[in-house]
Amino acid sequence: MASLVGGIEAGGTKFVCAVGTGPDDIRAESRFPTTDPDETLLQAIAFFREQQMHHGPIRALGIASFGPVDPHPDSPRFGYITSTPKPGWKDTDFGARISRELGLPLGFDTDVNVAALGEARWGAAQGLDTFLYLTVGTGIGGGGLVNGRMMHGLIHPEMGHVRIPHDRDEDPYPGRCPFHDDCLEGLACGPAIEERWKTPARELPPDHPAWVLEAKYLALALVNYVCTFSPQRMILGGGVMEQLQLFPMIRQQVQQLLNGYVQSPALLERIDEYIVPPGLGNRAGVLGAIALAQDQA
Amino acid sequence: MASLVGGIEAGGTKFVCAVGTGPDDIRAESRFPTTDPDETLLQAIAFFREQQMHHGPIRALGIASFGPVDPHPDSPRFGYITSTPKPGWKDTDFGARISRELGLPLGFDTDVNVAALGEARWGAAQGLDTFLYLTVGTGIGGGGLVNGRMMHGLIHPEMGHVRIPHDRDEDPYPGRCPFHDDCLEGLACGPAIEERWKTPARELPPDHPAWVLEAKYLALALVNYVCTFSPQRMILGGGVMEQLQLFPMIRQQVQQLLNGYVQSPALLERIDEYIVPPGLGNRAGVLGAIALAQDQA
Repeated sequence: MASLVGGIEAGGTKFVCAVGTGPDDIRAESRFPTTDPDETLLQAIAFFREQQMHHGPIRALGIASFGPVDPHPDSPRFGYITSTPKPGWKDTDFGARISRELGLPLGFDTDVNVAALGEARWGAAQGLDTFLYLTVGTGIGGGGLVNGRMMHGLIHPEMGHVRIPHDRDEDPYPGRCPFHDDCLEGLACGPAIEERWKTPARELPPDHPAWVLEAKYLALALVNYVCTFSPQRMILGGGVMEQLQLFPMIRQQVQQLLNGYVQSPALLERIDEYIVPPGLGNRAGVLGAIALAQDQA
Repeated sequence: MASLVGGIEAGGTKFVCAVGTGPDDIRAESRFPTTDPDETLLQAIAFFREQQMHHGPIRALGIASFGPVDPHPDSPRFGYITSTPKPGWKDTDFGARISRELGLPLGFDTDVNVAALGEARWGAAQGLDTFLYLTVGTGIGGGGLVNGRMMHGLIHPEMGHVRIPHDRDEDPYPGRCPFHDDCLEGLACGPAIEERWKTPARELPPDHPAWVLEAKYLALALVNYVCTFSPQRMILGGGVMEQLQLFPMIRQQVQQLLNGYVQSPALLERIDEYIVPPGLGNRAGVLGAIALAQDQA
């Protein structure tokens, strides 16, 4: 039987803490805003201590964190949030501190890598060893599994910051990334849509030209991910991707851009199953954190 | 002691076959042009049979192949060259046939993945588990290791075909990729340099503006690879990269494009050791094939 574990989806805006053994057995959950590190951490610790009193021992903790983070277990800064611009959180001993105070083994990784793990365990990536999980919302971030393990390398992917072709005649919007102006995130995150069209993204009707442009930018990035690491599936989540009309437009543009070059039935014939929403919906992060904790228990 | 094995660097232009145990112990080597599959394969088979008579049993065979290929050992088409435009070679049972006729266990992968393996074993990527090997020549191809294993996924990477920003005011050259026009390969392979500047690349002087543009395109692609899979090092080989003046220009442009976003000393302080030529020079392919064979022996 799966162990009782704790999971945290640690976002820049809110924390979601849960205790359970899997998607069908979440015993308790708590959501609260991300304030300063001390207050936020104490709130998370208090939640897990209380759950331990009610439900018995928790075996391990998994954290899906906003970043950048240090996800390397053998690093002295494992479990840290590193160079984030979020006030108060830069170079914060976050995961290691919670795990120390609770006395629990820790799994700690980026929000997107952990969401990918959740999708691999219980969602749209079951049975795959190499796939992409991309979130498109306030920012754009990507992670996934390659050869069955989460993507780390030098640090971890920062897929939102790839450069893509930007036709300034078609789209004079300069982009809003403070580091790169018109990288993917700068052009296609939710706030960029709002700034470009002077309307919050969720208020734009499904047939608005905003979505055609959005699909184009996302398709350009997806094609680059396909060429770079050959994912077996691409899972797109996040607030912007709740605009489901984007999926068929993105699929069509990905096929058009690849132009038959990558000869795989997954791309040529079954693209509806290749570019998909998360099987766990907006629960991929917190459930991934539970899956990550299970791996430490 | 390492076993005596055979390696083939199977290029679209020439084959290099070698027998040995490693870089310091190559017992014999043969080079011949790539003609039609039957003739080329028979020549390779004859070479290895002759070497077995002289040097004793060969334990396994490793092949670094031009592609696209099927590199999945559990696939019925493992060892095939699949959708190549090279006349006569499309859907060719290549690796499996040689290994069958010689009665040897087979390691078979893309030229760049195998070159990466050679660099990991004996070259510039020793001790790394996640890195890029990119070749820039007649075409552009990339591979590498992620989490210690060669990059496969859906098929294998096709890194030359990423889309990058192309400023047509600065560079009106339309690109020459038959599938994508101005993808990276279309803009930056050796023949694109020649076609754009009406001069063979190797005849352009080191201070020609061609190299500034070339460095820019390669830097844009490298930045995307960094953001996508976070390599611990990027090794650039192939004929175009013999223009060593490109390295400092590429490094400078990569730093400028990332603009401090990826906070790693490897990028911020030690980029001279981060973007490097192959440690094995133009021997990475054939030596990688020997390394791959060792893994099967």
